Amino acid sequence: MKVLHRQSGRTVIRFDIAEEFPKTLADWCRKERIGAAAIVAGIGMLRDVEIGRYDGMEYEIKTVEPSSEVLSLQGNVSMKEGEPFVHLHVSLADEDMDVMGGHLFKGTVSMTIELILLELDADFVRVPVEGTFWKLDTLD
Amino acid sequence: MKVLHRQSGRTVIRFDIAEEFPKTLADWCRKERIGAAAIVAGIGMLRDVEIGRYDGMEYEIKTVEPSSEVLSLQGNVSMKEGEPFVHLHVSLADEDMDVMGGHLFKGTVSMTIELILLELDADFVRVPVEGTFWKLDTLD
Amino acid sequence: MKVLHRQSGRTVIRFDIAEEFPKTLADWCRKERIGAAAIVAGIGMLRDVEIGRYDGMEYEIKTVEPSSEVLSLQGNVSMKEGEPFVHLHVSLADEDMDVMGGHLFKGTVSMTIELILLELDADFVRVPVEGTFWKLDTLD
Repeated sequence: MKVLHRQSGRTVIRFDIAEEFPKTLADWCRKERIGAAAIVAGIGMLRDVEIGRYDGMEYEIKTVEPSSEVLSLQGNVSMKEGEPFVHLHVSLADEDMDVMGGHLFKGTVSMTIELILLELDADFVRVPVEGTFWKLDTLD
Repeated sequence: MKVLHRQSGRTVIRFDIAEEFPKTLADWCRKERIGAAAIVAGIGMLRDVEIGRYDGMEYEIKTVEPSSEVLSLQGNVSMKEGEPFVHLHVSLADEDMDVMGGHLFKGTVSMTIELILLELDADFVRVPVEGTFWKLDTLD
Repeated sequence: MKVLHRQSGRTVIRFDIAEEFPKTLADWCRKERIGAAAIVAGIGMLRDVEIGRYDGMEYEIKTVEPSSEVLSLQGNVSMKEGEPFVHLHVSLADEDMDVMGGHLFKGTVSMTIELILLELDADFVRVPVEGTFWKLDTLD
């Protein structure tokens, strides 16, 4: 990965072939001590992607092995149990350019990911509520 | 709903179970007298969603009842006939993680919606042009 | 096209019927000498759209003729061989509101495109690496 721009809370990061995503992003957030960020755009390609659908209690998970175009990434970064937690939803185009998507658990960068973050002067946390759901909240 | 962050024109709002979306957002915009905003990200889950496709004169509307993952929300807030108008397009993943989407008329939050807004120091308006189309414009 | 707002690096542009997209955006970037921008949202409708899927060496291209709802646009602007280069991925809803998408080569605005840019105080470039892939980078 390479941080291409980081100014006025606007950050552009390029992730490179074979990097794990979003793990590499979470690792960077930990190193930079980022307590809150909005993820507003991300395009490129991922392979061996695990996406999920939440049924209210747990995630059903599907693996998408072939390299797929990442059409959109949206989400945020918060702290969950003391660690940076990246909550991202992804839209992926398959070989026929049909689109599938869900909660992004993991993927491997197969070409590039060009990501746009807004770093926020805040501390977001994930708070367990009922069942298995952790809501986005603030410390106060 | 809870405003988690609002600083330098960057606003993060969490919408909660059973809230109507985007009505709750429009109500908040009215209360806060927001004349223009960009909606740059929104993820979570909605049920009983009404999405539409514009054929040049009117919207064909489809209802998606099951709780669906919201993969992306993009759009803006302007004033239309004196009231805040939320123009949003949504991508939704169904139970097979296949994606459908369109103009978002309404939905009910079934888990959460985590929304990122950029509040703009401007006044956007919707101006009727021809037929049934209202274009995004400014007052001047 | 009309620039509706341009302040603090936040820019909202409306593209109008029959304009070529993203060519009109690239032309505007050239005129305004924009060296780097993040494209964080874009909704509206396009017809005669060419979308592509990269197989690691070249793009497979598909043409979508009917007017389609643009559900999301994400990407960036950089300089490639001395010219502004718009890298955009698009999600499109067809007449059944099913979604397809990919790298956006071109389309014709069939109603409107409402685009949100973050202009960055930077110079992004596209650098050839291996094969036919040009990675997003900075001059330094």
